[in-house]
Amino acid sequence: MRATLLYGAGDVRIETVPDAVLSAPTDALVRVTAACICGTDLWPYESMPAGGAPAPMGHELIGVVEDVGAEVTGVARGDVVVVPWFNSCGSCEFCREGLYTACPAGGMWGYGPLGGGQAEAIRVPFADGTLVKLPAATDPALLPSLLTLSDVLGTGHHAAVSGGVAPGTDVTVIGDGAVGLLAVLAARRLGAQRIILMGRHTARTDLGREFGATDVVAARGAEGIEALRELTGGLGTRVVIEAVGSRAAYEQALGVVRRGGTISRVGVPQYEEAPIGMGSLFTGNVRLTGGAAPTRAYAGELLPDILAGTIDPGRVFDVTTGLDGVPDGYRRMADRKSLKVLIRP
Amino acid sequence: MRATLLYGAGDVRIETVPDAVLSAPTDALVRVTAACICGTDLWPYESMPAGGAPAPMGHELIGVVEDVGAEVTGVARGDVVVVPWFNSCGSCEFCREGLYTACPAGGMWGYGPLGGGQAEAIRVPFADGTLVKLPAATDPALLPSLLTLSDVLGTGHHAAVSGGVAPGTDVTVIGDGAVGLLAVLAARRLGAQRIILMGRHTARTDLGREFGATDVVAARGAEGIEALRELTGGLGTRVVIEAVGSRAAYEQALGVVRRGGTISRVGVPQYEEAPIGMGSLFTGNVRLTGGAAPTRAYAGELLPDILAGTIDPGRVFDVTTGLDGVPDGYRRMADRKSLKVLIRP
Repeated sequence: MRATLLYGAGDVRIETVPDAVLSAPTDALVRVTAACICGTDLWPYESMPAGGAPAPMGHELIGVVEDVGAEVTGVARGDVVVVPWFNSCGSCEFCREGLYTACPAGGMWGYGPLGGGQAEAIRVPFADGTLVKLPAATDPALLPSLLTLSDVLGTGHHAAVSGGVAPGTDVTVIGDGAVGLLAVLAARRLGAQRIILMGRHTARTDLGREFGATDVVAARGAEGIEALRELTGGLGTRVVIEAVGSRAAYEQALGVVRRGGTISRVGVPQYEEAPIGMGSLFTGNVRLTGGAAPTRAYAGELLPDILAGTIDPGRVFDVTTGLDGVPDGYRRMADRKSLKVLIRP
Repeated sequence: MRATLLYGAGDVRIETVPDAVLSAPTDALVRVTAACICGTDLWPYESMPAGGAPAPMGHELIGVVEDVGAEVTGVARGDVVVVPWFNSCGSCEFCREGLYTACPAGGMWGYGPLGGGQAEAIRVPFADGTLVKLPAATDPALLPSLLTLSDVLGTGHHAAVSGGVAPGTDVTVIGDGAVGLLAVLAARRLGAQRIILMGRHTARTDLGREFGATDVVAARGAEGIEALRELTGGLGTRVVIEAVGSRAAYEQALGVVRRGGTISRVGVPQYEEAPIGMGSLFTGNVRLTGGAAPTRAYAGELLPDILAGTIDPGRVFDVTTGLDGVPDGYRRMADRKSLKVLIRP
């Protein structure tokens, strides 16, 4: 089968690899009908040293179950399933409470023995604990939006939920990538009153406005902080969603959060240490929350809104390609020419 | 009047300073009947460079109102009042929501024009927004416990509240100083089921057990983390209260918090940067919360329990002295010979 492999920074290749096959009785074999490129994929795309083993890429996908192991009971051949970005056993105490990303047995696609999702097929371990089965005869036009349940919408929603967004909340969202824009959508859906989107790509912030942003701040750094504070009577907002992952974005969050407020991070941090002492979090009782989003836990809440057409998160996809177009898709996303690339293998 | 001044590390002096007097119509003049030495006082006591202006010390006190400015309406001459460690205007939006320590006009005793509380008297700005009036004819035997409303009990309670302690919660408390011990008491009061106290001073951890600790871990660092994880099935606890303020204590908190759990800090951080990325908070969705405790906000909830004798937080005081004994009190606390020193000026 064909799959996407990253050999090093800027070097994405589509190659023929051994077919995905069942190997455990709890596995499912899923034929990928749609996948996509994530902002997170861009970090290794921009920095991975060459010369080592290539990395299977892709962790957001939707597909059709082609075969299941003997112990799988929750899905069957022919089912259309969302494959969350993190697989999970479904039975440990973390899975039982919905924190699937803390499952000690689970993992992210493309690591260890796991294939990537930007491929024709994938072996899914713990099929019952991982897959989200979609209703039969789902309108194919909804497929892009349904695909966002795998990661990007669930992650935006996690940011809003972790930040404590509720009716009337004022929120800043830092980052106009797909996660940031869907954090806007999620915050609006949860009733946020004012949503200030910090981003400098007009086409993206325009979509952010359609998703519910009430204000846009294009400036960054100290200038951006000053602009946001001007908008908020000098105080900042009670919730700040950091949807980038850079240290600069975290520091921007520190600058725009109201005392007593919450910074909710969902951009995968590209730093380990950062300010959390008297000069940053402590004095103002600012909470720091968020983390790796257990998107499977949110599918049940978000799916009905997609099926009903109340939300249309699939609008974050601005390019659709086959596998052959994937290397170009990475380039386009890295160059900020595309917001998010949909792949139909 | 006599007051406590810190001239540099290890150099505490009791000196005669100008009498505290009213200077604004919103001021009160309070004759100090009881004050104490805080663990926070030990940081400058152990590190302040000599040669600069001396620092007025003390921020936890209780006293009798001796005079009030023309605009003060909430307290009057003769009232017995708790003076919270942070003064606050009482009318800004932060004060109105109870986050008194975020009051932009407020401040901590001993800084700027404000005197310290380890003195015979103190001028209290924003008397109506700061002071907590006690019922008339309060039993003098309760004075030590009432004094803890100023800071140490309210801070321990803030740690537990910010951590989300509720009936049935499992909690680790790092630090067997007075704040840590009263965090144990507060967690128990809020219904925590299991409270593991990490501390290595037996007399203190014994008091911690009386306050409600169910387990004690005396080991620190990697060994302490391993011991705690053994007690919790390898997982750590859902709430970890960090009541020390050192980076080592924060790192210990990272080591013992359960995935999906909360680290609540109330020890004033003696560091600015620390790990918060993939290797610490992010992957496991660990929340970081806490901060400068708005103890005034909690007096209304905690006072009745002290008056009723349900809780006896004053037990953290193991030495009582006059002002002359204050320098020795600092030495004893720095040497860990005293847990907390009560001062009767």
